[in-house]
Amino acid sequence: MSLKEIFATRATRMKASEIRELLKLLDQPDIISFAGGIPDPDLFPKTEFAKAFADALNGPMAAQGLQYSTSEGYLPLRVWIARQMQAIGIPATPDNILITSGSQQALDYLGKLFLSPGDTALVGWPTYLGALGAFNAYEPHYDKLDPLSNRTGPDYAATAEAKGGKAKFAYLSVDFANPTGATVSHAARARVIDLADEMEIAVIEDAAYQSLRFDGEAIPPILTLEAARKGGNLEACRTIYCGSFSKTLSPGLRVGWVVAAMPVISQLVLMKQAADLHSATLNQIAITQVAEQHFDSHVATIRDAYSARRDVMLKALTQHMPEGVSWTKPEGGMFIWVTLPGQLDGAELLKQALESARVAFVPGHAFFADGSGRNTIRLSFSNSSEDKIAEGIKRLGALVSKAIAA
Amino acid sequence: MSLKEIFATRATRMKASEIRELLKLLDQPDIISFAGGIPDPDLFPKTEFAKAFADALNGPMAAQGLQYSTSEGYLPLRVWIARQMQAIGIPATPDNILITSGSQQALDYLGKLFLSPGDTALVGWPTYLGALGAFNAYEPHYDKLDPLSNRTGPDYAATAEAKGGKAKFAYLSVDFANPTGATVSHAARARVIDLADEMEIAVIEDAAYQSLRFDGEAIPPILTLEAARKGGNLEACRTIYCGSFSKTLSPGLRVGWVVAAMPVISQLVLMKQAADLHSATLNQIAITQVAEQHFDSHVATIRDAYSARRDVMLKALTQHMPEGVSWTKPEGGMFIWVTLPGQLDGAELLKQALESARVAFVPGHAFFADGSGRNTIRLSFSNSSEDKIAEGIKRLGALVSKAIAA
Repeated sequence: MSLKEIFATRATRMKASEIRELLKLLDQPDIISFAGGIPDPDLFPKTEFAKAFADALNGPMAAQGLQYSTSEGYLPLRVWIARQMQAIGIPATPDNILITSGSQQALDYLGKLFLSPGDTALVGWPTYLGALGAFNAYEPHYDKLDPLSNRTGPDYAATAEAKGGKAKFAYLSVDFANPTGATVSHAARARVIDLADEMEIAVIEDAAYQSLRFDGEAIPPILTLEAARKGGNLEACRTIYCGSFSKTLSPGLRVGWVVAAMPVISQLVLMKQAADLHSATLNQIAITQVAEQHFDSHVATIRDAYSARRDVMLKALTQHMPEGVSWTKPEGGMFIWVTLPGQLDGAELLKQALESARVAFVPGHAFFADGSGRNTIRLSFSNSSEDKIAEGIKRLGALVSKAIAA
Repeated sequence: MSLKEIFATRATRMKASEIRELLKLLDQPDIISFAGGIPDPDLFPKTEFAKAFADALNGPMAAQGLQYSTSEGYLPLRVWIARQMQAIGIPATPDNILITSGSQQALDYLGKLFLSPGDTALVGWPTYLGALGAFNAYEPHYDKLDPLSNRTGPDYAATAEAKGGKAKFAYLSVDFANPTGATVSHAARARVIDLADEMEIAVIEDAAYQSLRFDGEAIPPILTLEAARKGGNLEACRTIYCGSFSKTLSPGLRVGWVVAAMPVISQLVLMKQAADLHSATLNQIAITQVAEQHFDSHVATIRDAYSARRDVMLKALTQHMPEGVSWTKPEGGMFIWVTLPGQLDGAELLKQALESARVAFVPGHAFFADGSGRNTIRLSFSNSSEDKIAEGIKRLGALVSKAIAA
């Protein structure tokens, strides 16, 4: 980009300031917000982190914590993660793991690694907005990933090539996905591996919410299924698994990870070395201690809290939403996805909701690569009290009833 | 990149493991290393950081420190940086500042923002290896930046276009640069602005070492000179200033910053949002406290220590290096750049130095975009005691004398 272009595009792309405007509105004390897909800060393990940072900075690790470190990440953290991965059937060693600054960075690096302008990325319709944001920088086309009904490889490859590029990967968030709260079925996961094998493309498995399952049976990760199919050999797998501590321990410390075959990890390590050297050393040391000592108990605590909030939201939706409105029943995570009657527009409803009902949420069309889904909205239940959830859905239900009647 | 290509290129690009091998050698206790361009960890402000992290995590800031935050960075830190910038003549407001995960990330984002494959980047010969690493991802050509003798804009533009791209920016490290220790003169800084104005390109001013001036007169940053020329209006400036806490407070926390006109910052904020959301919140809060309370006194301490080490190294070079060897006399920073007689090869010398003299350094040719400079080596004096510096240079001098005689 030239300096001139940067100055010219300024007016049309002030997304950061738009967000600031929205956040200002949300800060008004009488607004009940189901907008941000963020953890409840009251549930952060503050004491545990205070101790971990104190231990790191007052002990023999202090110099190491403040110094440069290797691009692949702090070894004891990779060891802990490898054990966690093994527990869910992924035969990873620490050499299969790269520490990233949140899983968002993993998505950016994977976009950079795979995509040239005009290539095709297969994504869900809708899908995680941050994934589209990360991939967009590399100028791909998007095609709809719908594992149980997608045509097979050669068709797809032909479509992609007609557009001037090649299909490079399928991206999907597997458990209680942002934005829908939906979980990809066992059959669909297996089908994604078939599809990827046929098309010779990678699979990017976004498992950011995986630890937040409240009920129902856990479904094995795609990488687990693929490794099992390929004789337990991770090196033969095309699936790249992205994990994160953002939904379990803390998003503000920016620590996530990628699990993949070693050649993929080697490329990502080189990329990280060139892009930001490494993720913050001290944060990796502190998160290792908190993970080793408190991960399971802490995750149980937040699961209980979020699960109760989901229940309240589902109950309130049943009580207050008029006929013609439907919603997902997520088995975990942070989100419920609401589909309104076709004539309603989520963005228009948000404006009214902020003005009259004093309730906030995210209109759904932003999550569609093709801009469809105007009659959908995303509700987050993770960061509101049960009382506020009951009250907010009551107000929203009244507003939707009014809008349908109008 | 396709999965197949990744698996194929594996063997030729195992840079991370090569580095691991080198690091293993350097860990041997009898090796005196002038290789790593890293701060002395004994000089980190550990107590101050221990207090800052404790204050952040035990007080009302805890939830904020562990939560998501804005892509542009923590406002009080941007306020502190803006004041520092104003003190050196850069009329920056907090809105002109983006917090990055080290200045390495700034270089990556600037490469991503400006460069399309085949574009030209003007860089020093030699220049900072990490800058080449960051820019290489965007596949530019390089041309030699030599402000006092470079031909003017149209010539350059024609050269660049003949290669299929456009000249997009000039990159230079201005004070006690890595790897040479050299400082860009006032006249050369002024000339870079002329050149950039003529060519309508950006200037990337890497000021990573600026605070580490031991003696001599400080030279105003390029951005200061340009702002003064343009009526004190930063918004009219094409220079983009990259700063870092890595050489002053801590590299392991990964906190740096970019100062630029607001349209450039807006673009970089969007890019950061897509690439890793934001730099670690807690680290920004802690570094703000340490910077506010201890920056000047701490920087004075490390300047004193590094300055004494530079003096010892310069004295030892004079004592022990044979005729035909020359070196820079840096006024600050961490590096001395040694030019050997033309028939000697720095990489070959390193092999001998590790085996017989048990001394390590970095061969200079890696820092040249064109692979020249084989008879140069980089010595870092920041991370060795004065005794080890005296002893190491003595051993190295003997080895060089032997190599010349051979």
